[in-house]
Amino acid sequence: MQRLSRLRIPLKTHSETVRGFVKSAAMGDKKGSGSRVLNIDNMNPNVKVMEYAVRGPLVIRAGQIEEELQKGTSKKLFNQVIRANIGDCHAVGQTPLPFLRQVVAGAAYPDMLDKMNMPLDVRDRVNRILDGCRGHSIGSYTDSVGIDNIRKDVASYISKRDGGIASNHTDIFLCGGASDGIKSILKLLMTEEPGRQAGVMIPIPQYPLYTATIAEYNAFPVPYYLDEANKWALDVPDLERAVKENASKCDLRAIVVINPGNPTGQVLSKQNIEDVIKFAKKNHLFILADEVYQHNIYAKGSEFHSFKKVLNSMGPEYAGMELASFMSTSKGYMGECGFRGGYCEAVNLDPDVRAMLLKFLSAKLCPNVPGQCAIEVVVNPPKQGEPSYDLFMQDKNKVLGDLATKAKMTTQILNSIDGITCNEVMGAMYAFPKITIPQKAIDQAKTKGMQPDAFFCFELLEETGICVVPGSGFGQREGTFHFRTTILPPVDQIKMMLDKLKEFYAAFVHKYK
Amino acid sequence: MQRLSRLRIPLKTHSETVRGFVKSAAMGDKKGSGSRVLNIDNMNPNVKVMEYAVRGPLVIRAGQIEEELQKGTSKKLFNQVIRANIGDCHAVGQTPLPFLRQVVAGAAYPDMLDKMNMPLDVRDRVNRILDGCRGHSIGSYTDSVGIDNIRKDVASYISKRDGGIASNHTDIFLCGGASDGIKSILKLLMTEEPGRQAGVMIPIPQYPLYTATIAEYNAFPVPYYLDEANKWALDVPDLERAVKENASKCDLRAIVVINPGNPTGQVLSKQNIEDVIKFAKKNHLFILADEVYQHNIYAKGSEFHSFKKVLNSMGPEYAGMELASFMSTSKGYMGECGFRGGYCEAVNLDPDVRAMLLKFLSAKLCPNVPGQCAIEVVVNPPKQGEPSYDLFMQDKNKVLGDLATKAKMTTQILNSIDGITCNEVMGAMYAFPKITIPQKAIDQAKTKGMQPDAFFCFELLEETGICVVPGSGFGQREGTFHFRTTILPPVDQIKMMLDKLKEFYAAFVHKYK
Repeated sequence: MQRLSRLRIPLKTHSETVRGFVKSAAMGDKKGSGSRVLNIDNMNPNVKVMEYAVRGPLVIRAGQIEEELQKGTSKKLFNQVIRANIGDCHAVGQTPLPFLRQVVAGAAYPDMLDKMNMPLDVRDRVNRILDGCRGHSIGSYTDSVGIDNIRKDVASYISKRDGGIASNHTDIFLCGGASDGIKSILKLLMTEEPGRQAGVMIPIPQYPLYTATIAEYNAFPVPYYLDEANKWALDVPDLERAVKENASKCDLRAIVVINPGNPTGQVLSKQNIEDVIKFAKKNHLFILADEVYQHNIYAKGSEFHSFKKVLNSMGPEYAGMELASFMSTSKGYMGECGFRGGYCEAVNLDPDVRAMLLKFLSAKLCPNVPGQCAIEVVVNPPKQGEPSYDLFMQDKNKVLGDLATKAKMTTQILNSIDGITCNEVMGAMYAFPKITIPQKAIDQAKTKGMQPDAFFCFELLEETGICVVPGSGFGQREGTFHFRTTILPPVDQIKMMLDKLKEFYAAFVHKYK
Repeated sequence: MQRLSRLRIPLKTHSETVRGFVKSAAMGDKKGSGSRVLNIDNMNPNVKVMEYAVRGPLVIRAGQIEEELQKGTSKKLFNQVIRANIGDCHAVGQTPLPFLRQVVAGAAYPDMLDKMNMPLDVRDRVNRILDGCRGHSIGSYTDSVGIDNIRKDVASYISKRDGGIASNHTDIFLCGGASDGIKSILKLLMTEEPGRQAGVMIPIPQYPLYTATIAEYNAFPVPYYLDEANKWALDVPDLERAVKENASKCDLRAIVVINPGNPTGQVLSKQNIEDVIKFAKKNHLFILADEVYQHNIYAKGSEFHSFKKVLNSMGPEYAGMELASFMSTSKGYMGECGFRGGYCEAVNLDPDVRAMLLKFLSAKLCPNVPGQCAIEVVVNPPKQGEPSYDLFMQDKNKVLGDLATKAKMTTQILNSIDGITCNEVMGAMYAFPKITIPQKAIDQAKTKGMQPDAFFCFELLEETGICVVPGSGFGQREGTFHFRTTILPPVDQIKMMLDKLKEFYAAFVHKYK
């Protein structure tokens, strides 16, 4: 049975580190595990294998250091931890857009609409939401696919985004963050046959939700390498290599594409997307298009092309292909991660399969309604002529402008460091630079049972307070090392962080000469 | 491999009905399923088996009728559908408690605190929440176990509820509704070995989240019958029967207890809980205590005894037992279903297992933050002396008073119907009456491939507009028939509904004499 070790994702690092922390915390716990029903040996083996580096051991260690700094017990030479590990905008100072918060507050507590003289566009969105809520309350369960009006607004948004191509709200379900929707679609694809696992093609490097879910569901990961030499594009020869090597070992069914890319920051060209669609057609694959960063496009000449739009432009031969696309409230320019809002548009599903999907969703009751309110605002923001429009656009442009500035600056500073190269941050919220690690450091890492880039990142954290995620947490070509940093901290903090990093790297290389 | 057919839960009814609906909607879809990647034959077989009657075919049909009534195209003799199928308070007219909504709105849009002169207790809760949010925003991801302050408040609540017994916030994780927490704990318990599935004891009748999750996870259901003749208490001889019959067929690991009961409405005595704990100890079982209705106690002499409190009173021999207890924002007297908020307190977990749980939760990032705000209010409502206290208590007492009235009335009216008997609704939000179905109707149901009580419920819906859920959706002893109605509609509507039901039942019995 295929496990994930081939992907060089540190299977033991997280578990051992966390177990260390938990053991020290549980010093008082004297009962032998023999008396317990559940122990490390008999528990769910899939959960043991799962890893999620974005909140992994490094981040746990960063939390400990932060606590010591706060208490004043720290001996560190720095006075703050810079959290560049997670795509969490508000955590590092981005402010919520008032319009979205007014709509959510208004839906939760409609008294405030009059008492705070909320403008007509806020009231309009609140009404659209509450009209779809039984008892006119966001405290009711909604339909399991989400509030009808919101799904219709999602469909309008998609249609408008894609230049008028039809989008049916019946193909859309709201979900508790894109992750929740992705897991639901992957769930349908599983064979539940250990001898013939469902094969899912995933990009390397990838956002580790995919490897974590594949581990949890006991699916068969089929990694394909993004082409670092070509701006992290998908490389059809490598896709074919992946199929050739793996098709006989699993029931290959799906391909995941993340565009814009996480952690890589690439924005795929229309041609590249067409090539992937042709490849998926030829190999009879269900496409999962993770498009949560569709509002985060920075590079000149880059443009977001939705898989749906490109598929639609390729004619009748491709028209019936199964495609699930995902969007979230967590990214873009509103960055409302905590709301856990999102949608999935799944087209061309077999009707019987769709019925099963609806049934599966019904057992989860419904996505959280405040999150549904948030996705309503993401797809139906103030329009020109509406009262909130000007301020909204001002805020939107500021956030996206700052991100573009930081993307450019990050790319530039990283590339200025001897021994580090970084593809252009074309979109999304991250840079994924390649770093050269001296052999001595690699050896040192091995003696500690760590991946070399994790070793680097731990030293970076301990010395400077900068918290990033090692490339091994996302996957990378053997023999290469990377780390992922976000571009989210404020401009001056990012600059300071990158300068510190530059300094640290030089010292690190010197130390392990 | 054990499947769920033994539980007499209609495995095909939902799927076939929904497929019918979807097929008619998809008339325009001419593509053969042969060209698709995913079809009914190769998709996840576990999802095919899952059923969730609370939102099943009857409810789908109720929605259709509602739509026709709304459009004015209906030929029905009634003018509204009475939705007594789901524990959704606000959907049938219960109003949100202002304090909770003020806290949520204040956390989402802090400007309103001053502008609407929010009282100090609202501000206090908002501060407790926002202090635990990075960037002071509910739009940030929180810790995967939920905001620290809230977990501490949950611990205080539990401790106070249980007469001062210690509760550690480190044993607590917040979740997206109790369902989400229950699924996480069940996930840990799975063996992922088809030849030796994890066995989970579940009450019959039960809330169908459990059978649905067992199907989804391919666990082995070990049903035990609640004793209808003894107020739906747990019956130790039957628990032992269940173990004897099934222990060799699975890796028996856990027992689920729902108290107060859904659908049965029983409130377990302290003695009964002790007996179950002793049984669980003897059979080396992990206890899952679904206690979401702990605030819904109506019957004279009934009292909520938490499993934790009873466990604690049983001395050192039992002290180390693994126990996970669940609570939700959806029930009680606030009824905030749409927020998808809840908590789990899991005590005596093996530290390594706990580390794996934390890791599993980290891959889900965090529970939705508005839901976390809601659970904060549930466990930390206005205290005596706080400004919102009086109005809050007034509302609370009104809701619980009405529920108690409706519980009593429902029990009484159902028992007054010849051919129907109903145990006292001691707590929760439902009545689960036993009904006698004439043989002719049973035969008619069989020709239609339906469970007899589903047949009854469909006719009830079509004739009167009353939507309840057939007992076969929850499980019941062979040869018995039940349905579950909520007690949530307003008093006058419930009375009207029960009178209609009485009339209909008499006519039904006559029709199928």
